[in-house]
Amino acid sequence: MDLKPTKPLSGFIELLPPAQRCFDACSARMLNILRAAGFSVLDLPAIERAEVLTDKDNWDEIETQMFLFQKGDTKMGLRYDGTVGLARYVAGHLNDLVFPFRAAQFSKRYRGERAQRGRYREFYQMDLDIMGINTLSINYDAEVIATIARALDAVREFIGPAVVHVGSRPFWDALFDYLKLDAAQKKAVFVLIDKKDKMADGAFAEALHETLDNTNVEHQILSVFVDGYTNFVGHSDALDVAISELRDFMKLLREIGVENAQLDLSITRGLAYYTGLVFEFKLIDHPELGTAAGGGRYADLAGKFSKTKIIGVGAAIGFSRIFWALLENDKIDISRFVRPVTAVVLVMGNQNVAYAMRVANEMRAAGIATAMFLDTNKKFKNQVEYADKIGALFSVIVGDDEVAKNVVALKNMVSGDQNIVGVSDVIKLLKK
Amino acid sequence: MDLKPTKPLSGFIELLPPAQRCFDACSARMLNILRAAGFSVLDLPAIERAEVLTDKDNWDEIETQMFLFQKGDTKMGLRYDGTVGLARYVAGHLNDLVFPFRAAQFSKRYRGERAQRGRYREFYQMDLDIMGINTLSINYDAEVIATIARALDAVREFIGPAVVHVGSRPFWDALFDYLKLDAAQKKAVFVLIDKKDKMADGAFAEALHETLDNTNVEHQILSVFVDGYTNFVGHSDALDVAISELRDFMKLLREIGVENAQLDLSITRGLAYYTGLVFEFKLIDHPELGTAAGGGRYADLAGKFSKTKIIGVGAAIGFSRIFWALLENDKIDISRFVRPVTAVVLVMGNQNVAYAMRVANEMRAAGIATAMFLDTNKKFKNQVEYADKIGALFSVIVGDDEVAKNVVALKNMVSGDQNIVGVSDVIKLLKK
Repeated sequence: MDLKPTKPLSGFIELLPPAQRCFDACSARMLNILRAAGFSVLDLPAIERAEVLTDKDNWDEIETQMFLFQKGDTKMGLRYDGTVGLARYVAGHLNDLVFPFRAAQFSKRYRGERAQRGRYREFYQMDLDIMGINTLSINYDAEVIATIARALDAVREFIGPAVVHVGSRPFWDALFDYLKLDAAQKKAVFVLIDKKDKMADGAFAEALHETLDNTNVEHQILSVFVDGYTNFVGHSDALDVAISELRDFMKLLREIGVENAQLDLSITRGLAYYTGLVFEFKLIDHPELGTAAGGGRYADLAGKFSKTKIIGVGAAIGFSRIFWALLENDKIDISRFVRPVTAVVLVMGNQNVAYAMRVANEMRAAGIATAMFLDTNKKFKNQVEYADKIGALFSVIVGDDEVAKNVVALKNMVSGDQNIVGVSDVIKLLKK
Repeated sequence: MDLKPTKPLSGFIELLPPAQRCFDACSARMLNILRAAGFSVLDLPAIERAEVLTDKDNWDEIETQMFLFQKGDTKMGLRYDGTVGLARYVAGHLNDLVFPFRAAQFSKRYRGERAQRGRYREFYQMDLDIMGINTLSINYDAEVIATIARALDAVREFIGPAVVHVGSRPFWDALFDYLKLDAAQKKAVFVLIDKKDKMADGAFAEALHETLDNTNVEHQILSVFVDGYTNFVGHSDALDVAISELRDFMKLLREIGVENAQLDLSITRGLAYYTGLVFEFKLIDHPELGTAAGGGRYADLAGKFSKTKIIGVGAAIGFSRIFWALLENDKIDISRFVRPVTAVVLVMGNQNVAYAMRVANEMRAAGIATAMFLDTNKKFKNQVEYADKIGALFSVIVGDDEVAKNVVALKNMVSGDQNIVGVSDVIKLLKK
């Protein structure tokens, strides 16, 4: 019989235990930051009705990106982000939740597209959203950005420092109105701005010229990327509102200690969905990884599910993508996560297993991660070898003598020192 | 436009935040027990190749139970248990892992069958497995049972005490040989034993008679459920080995303090897969929920993936099924999980937002879960109402006076008492 393949499907990641322990420790730290800021961690289904996942509008695009299947008459699929489920959940529980509602998610997402280098078909994102009914102060945008900054800072030893770029959709809307662009031009220019970061030098100006064929207007748009918004103060009420909002916002970020926050009007976060400020976090030491987290404000989260207007500000941290990429390039130090345990209990003679298990359980209850080697017919040498291989710092050895005297032999696996000690002393020594 | 449905698909569960916090706290406690016992928590893909999920042998049965889909030429599906992925992973990493290897998983599983009451199409199981190459002492079976007992005990305040029933496949194999059953009879009788628990009184004896038509043999099989194995000591070497193994095993469980362990030869865990001892945990206070956890020993985990013989003992804890069922029947006290935060910071006047955010961040860094109400144009009354609604124990109020004096007003939401205090005092008071 042919053996079946042992590799996971392409685009799917599975880690060895040390890297997984590091990933889990990082995720836990980040989630703790979110919980400490009052975010409720939700756990929503990974499978949604197809009609929830997509609209007629963008069906063609999404169908190529999704895992879809049918059961009976119901077409369904795996979620590709955390927002569709959140919108459905919040709309369905308007009376069960207190608004502004702070929601977090940390869950697997799926993209059905062909796997490419650095693109995963199954990945984790950590979402955070603050949602209000009808109204939500821009201060919450700052709260979301500050929370992400603290979450990324909690794993800084692995990913290094982050920078956040803040853009503004209302600024562009106001500028386009001031420049008297028509609807088609607005959309076309917006698409260009969204792609600007990935274009070669000069290509943006060229594309802008092709689209607008108006040197003065082109010049004014280009000036945004040179001087920021400074040229446009006083040009229109809408521009003034957008500019002062952005100016006050950047000041608030500085005052509350968000490091490395910078205004960047090239940040747009795509065409749909966002309606206010938008932002992207990047890693200073790893610019090649692109956006580590991104989000912004939306004016109507759940319009497809409810007549109640839910305004929100939210973001997704693409933590698994970053972690896996850094890991693959040996840029994450997982040395502290190599050992699954502090100690291994070794048993000489099957008659001593019960005693040894009671010792191990006392150690575990005291918070000392402890494995046991229980093939008691194996030689002492083989047993110590196991303890050494899994990286235990100590072996706790139980034989007839130890049981008779109600003690254990404690072997330091680094120094080789071995001492006879009581169980309570083992716990005291190893908890240090 | 019609609004889209807000309910999840049938067979899918999503909890409100307080119940989710309770579930997450329980899961974390149980996983900590497993980690303390040296289990490495793996995170494997939810999607596997169809050929990994199933064999020709049982394809028909499994196809009705799975979510399957195709991408390009590759047929794939969502895992229905943790074992298929584990077998693939371990076989693919024989040289990366140290054996005996202790693996844990806590992940979503999927069943494509039609949803019924108490049957979920997406659910969590917590798996633990200890695997050895070629050899693995029966002591590890005890270690797995004891670890599950401790994991369930860690959430006893919610689910009550558990009992473990231990059965033996080798006992039945030896008895069937001794009774000279042919292969077809062995299989038929085994199927009956596996179903015995769900049969009405007398129905088992009747079915046995229909199958065997041999009063003496029927009588001996029936006697197992009356006297246990005691009648069969000395009847054959294989029976003696199986009986003494089981006897020693039950003694070991008692000696290491596994509560409520009982011999129960009606436990078989189905037809396939297991080859040694088998066991099931049930909840004493909730017998209607059936099996809370079950597992046993298998002789060849990964034969389809590798020529290396991996012997293991493993189990799955069906924790989400139990938790959701108890929750639905109001049998879980989630009152301690109602509040997302200890405190809410309220801000009077937008000029004080930065100060208030710095206060909130100091509290969070000190481990005090803290939300903020940031719609500063809302009246004081509305702000306190928010703090009250989300169940905060304290409001921390920041206005012009507080900022000027570098203090806050701390309002006890239960007593209504309000005092002016410094930020470090807030932290001291609330950490108590």
